[in-house]
Amino acid sequence: MAAGLSNALKTARHRLPSAAVRNYSIPVQQSAWGPATCGASGLDSSSGRAAPLFKSHNTPPVIHSFTQQTRFQSFTQIRKMSSSNSRRLNIDNINPHVRAAKYAVRGELAVKSEEFRAALLRGTSDIPFSQVISANIGNPQQLDQKPITFFRQVLSLLENPLLLEHEDVLINHLGYKTDVIERAKWFLKNVGSVGAYSASNGAPAIRQHIAEFLERRDGFPANWQDIYLSAGASSGVNTLLHIICADEKSGILVPIPQYPLYTASLSILNATCVPYLLDESKNWGTDINTIKESYQKAKDAGVDTRAIVIINPGNPTGASLSEEDIRAVLEFARQERLVVLADEVYQTNVFIGEFISFKRVLRQLQKENPDGKYDCVELASLHSISKGMVGECGHRGGYFELVNFDPEVQAEIYKFVSIMLCAPVIGQCLVELMVNPPKPGEPSYELYEKEYRGIYEGMRERANALHKAFEQMEGVECGAPQGAMYLFPTINLPPKAAEAAAKEGRTPDEFYCMKLLEATGVCVVPGSGFGQKEGSLHFRTTFLAPGTEWVGSIVKFHKEFMDQYR
Amino acid sequence: MAAGLSNALKTARHRLPSAAVRNYSIPVQQSAWGPATCGASGLDSSSGRAAPLFKSHNTPPVIHSFTQQTRFQSFTQIRKMSSSNSRRLNIDNINPHVRAAKYAVRGELAVKSEEFRAALLRGTSDIPFSQVISANIGNPQQLDQKPITFFRQVLSLLENPLLLEHEDVLINHLGYKTDVIERAKWFLKNVGSVGAYSASNGAPAIRQHIAEFLERRDGFPANWQDIYLSAGASSGVNTLLHIICADEKSGILVPIPQYPLYTASLSILNATCVPYLLDESKNWGTDINTIKESYQKAKDAGVDTRAIVIINPGNPTGASLSEEDIRAVLEFARQERLVVLADEVYQTNVFIGEFISFKRVLRQLQKENPDGKYDCVELASLHSISKGMVGECGHRGGYFELVNFDPEVQAEIYKFVSIMLCAPVIGQCLVELMVNPPKPGEPSYELYEKEYRGIYEGMRERANALHKAFEQMEGVECGAPQGAMYLFPTINLPPKAAEAAAKEGRTPDEFYCMKLLEATGVCVVPGSGFGQKEGSLHFRTTFLAPGTEWVGSIVKFHKEFMDQYR
Repeated sequence: MAAGLSNALKTARHRLPSAAVRNYSIPVQQSAWGPATCGASGLDSSSGRAAPLFKSHNTPPVIHSFTQQTRFQSFTQIRKMSSSNSRRLNIDNINPHVRAAKYAVRGELAVKSEEFRAALLRGTSDIPFSQVISANIGNPQQLDQKPITFFRQVLSLLENPLLLEHEDVLINHLGYKTDVIERAKWFLKNVGSVGAYSASNGAPAIRQHIAEFLERRDGFPANWQDIYLSAGASSGVNTLLHIICADEKSGILVPIPQYPLYTASLSILNATCVPYLLDESKNWGTDINTIKESYQKAKDAGVDTRAIVIINPGNPTGASLSEEDIRAVLEFARQERLVVLADEVYQTNVFIGEFISFKRVLRQLQKENPDGKYDCVELASLHSISKGMVGECGHRGGYFELVNFDPEVQAEIYKFVSIMLCAPVIGQCLVELMVNPPKPGEPSYELYEKEYRGIYEGMRERANALHKAFEQMEGVECGAPQGAMYLFPTINLPPKAAEAAAKEGRTPDEFYCMKLLEATGVCVVPGSGFGQKEGSLHFRTTFLAPGTEWVGSIVKFHKEFMDQYR
Repeated sequence: MAAGLSNALKTARHRLPSAAVRNYSIPVQQSAWGPATCGASGLDSSSGRAAPLFKSHNTPPVIHSFTQQTRFQSFTQIRKMSSSNSRRLNIDNINPHVRAAKYAVRGELAVKSEEFRAALLRGTSDIPFSQVISANIGNPQQLDQKPITFFRQVLSLLENPLLLEHEDVLINHLGYKTDVIERAKWFLKNVGSVGAYSASNGAPAIRQHIAEFLERRDGFPANWQDIYLSAGASSGVNTLLHIICADEKSGILVPIPQYPLYTASLSILNATCVPYLLDESKNWGTDINTIKESYQKAKDAGVDTRAIVIINPGNPTGASLSEEDIRAVLEFARQERLVVLADEVYQTNVFIGEFISFKRVLRQLQKENPDGKYDCVELASLHSISKGMVGECGHRGGYFELVNFDPEVQAEIYKFVSIMLCAPVIGQCLVELMVNPPKPGEPSYELYEKEYRGIYEGMRERANALHKAFEQMEGVECGAPQGAMYLFPTINLPPKAAEAAAKEGRTPDEFYCMKLLEATGVCVVPGSGFGQKEGSLHFRTTFLAPGTEWVGSIVKFHKEFMDQYR
């Protein structure tokens, strides 16, 4: 690669949000680092039993605490070990692209919160709170959300089909409705054992039902053969980026703020992230001129931008795009021949505005333009069982639909997913249940509808309560809850706080979030983990946690923090 | 990279088995390729309804048949479409490393077998067999293997914990034993909802039980914090290769024949495969001198070989390594500072010899050498719920254990897996059940033991029946079944068969396997998909399919094939 281009790429990359590499730390127990120098045996030679290096731990996980001081001590300590041993792999010779990847959602704060949780379980008394609230990640069932009964009843029969030999017991003693039993039989006939591999791109019968769902949702036909089941949407994103990115010049437009899956995956692939800022002043919508500017800058720097990522509704922002914004993006994609990656996993988590799919608008544009000028716009849209009212993220299910993709490229996508064999089959079944839930009049409908509505209303109420609290907090600005599972308030912190943060080698938002965790047990993610406009500070919190006590503790903490640093 | 090194790498890569890129084909319906040229609308503008390109298919999947002639016609046809359209992505500009990857286990033959299956379902009458036998992939539950009752009973309760409110019904009407209920409660208490994300490297409570299993198995301590749950062993291999391979000079020693996950993953990572031949004359064991030669050649070519892959018991060979062979590999790894990747997913599928883990031998070597010279040998060993008597591949569960790895490197592994959030939690629970099954004296033990033994004996019987058939076949040589789920016979084909194959652009083994499929419905994988010594020909077949009819049909086909080409 020419030096000029190489420098240009560096520049383009430099524009990336400084998603905190320092946010990331080591999830291992301190004692495991003890006598780990190599060359001196860690084994008691008489028994083969080990010194602490090999010690078997039956106690709950104790994760090393990273206060600022011990953190750097620990790194120094590890470093010393690494350089004095003769292991083949060390931090300086492993894959540099993995090393460069940043993923703050499960970074230092998350690790520390788990440490607090373990300490509370052990009954440690000097912790100023009684529970840890994991508001850092959209993990509904870890918090209050109950799974939907119909879904889980069907899955119980798929896991143990022998139960179907006792239909009377299921119905008369266990409250299973007949449609639960019928659905389970349909799966067993059309998908087979959930313990067997399916086709690499997913069970055909399930893909057909997804296509029917998309037809109902969008009012346009869908082809089941263009649908690929995946282990959550993350796995789908991984597949698509692997196909699209050919080399380090390959660029992908990514919204800022963004869910860091995108920047982390691009880092691992050694491709180029081309960031474009969302417009906070317009409810975090897309601004087509901003996108065009980012694209042009990257082009001038020699980047071969190939695709644009849109997260709609937004993560971390919750914003739903208007049809006008979607049209503008599709028109731009057409002009510049960009693949559109529409991450639509929050499509049912909408409180303000409405969800409009990219597929629907693209088909509408095709319909309005019989000259066929939109027929070559390639769209991949992703959905998931992890979010919405389903909230089954532990089951790792999702799918993506390809529109207007080249058949030869699709064959390569099929090959790529076949190397990992197939998505978890029980997760595939949950995708089917999500897109094909009980219908009005069917025996399980009433309960399903009640549970679904209850989850939706519960989320909205908690979002509003949290929003109300933020409105009372000095220096905090937060628009009304729009959707997804998150609020992403701006925090205006006093200069003294920024100074204290700098002393600890942290950004002010990281510093604030760490202090919040240490004081209240509430774990949130600093805005720097998603990217934010220079000079602005945010944090992302889910509104999934039940109760109001934790919200009160945030308000109290914030007041004390401001008093201390004002 | 210097031109000399670049050429050397090409040479090193050239030594790769010619795992058939041509074996790979397009899993899409022919009709979907119809009017796919872009620029001319595929839409009926009055309705937004589509021409065939967008047609919704509710019929079973019909996959385009690739006889040799239509195959090339089809590719030409696609090619024309690709070049005449203005889609952004085409086969020539996507990720070239994905394109270069080969994965024959689910390639052309598998696709064609699914097409036959669909045609039989539709009642097509001109097919010379009545069922398709998928002997191409170890997918036990697609064939005869029943899941283990205890496992599935526990999973049914994890999917629907509300059933635990009816313990009496479970016990008195549905035959659940008390230990099923106790185990389910343990999971719900220690892991939580299977619908929630776990820790990225897996639920701590499950990792602790895996460590205890490893201690029992090997007689040496294991540290639960060095254990990482994964979505099947494939995902674990993907993680480890991502960490180890830093650039295209990074080399990995891979056995030939091998399960093509390794070569495919290295291709995608653009790293270098350093193949070493297994010794068919010694029951497919490792020959340390052959390994040393391969290593030296790669070194001379400028390859930075960092790790050695061992598949034990072997895939596709079934061979179990002796302790002597394992010691030799570990000693070589120590000398050359190679990470050892021990793929041990078939550890319970052993008919001849015994399974000895790399971990046990490494710890034994450490014990015997108090000077600590083995303390820096880094070992990653992988296991899975997909194989063995568990056979739950559709649930995508597995784990790997790291031994002697640098803590900083482990932190990067943790970060890497956290980007995809976590392995499927129900699959994690199956890993726990696999390593911690009912014990003698517990209520479910008797049935568990009976089922487990039944599956094992059934596999052995079918392997022996198949082997006996191979012994009768002219020009076929096959050692006694050793383990895994496969036989890998040598086939000596007449020159006329090789000529006929060449005319179709196929290797002789591909040609033979295609003819076998077309005549009998039995789908196997040609040896070229795994790599084989130049001049030798093989195929891999599972011995999972029930009944003897399919074995008879192979014998009959072979005789006719030999008569035709002799």
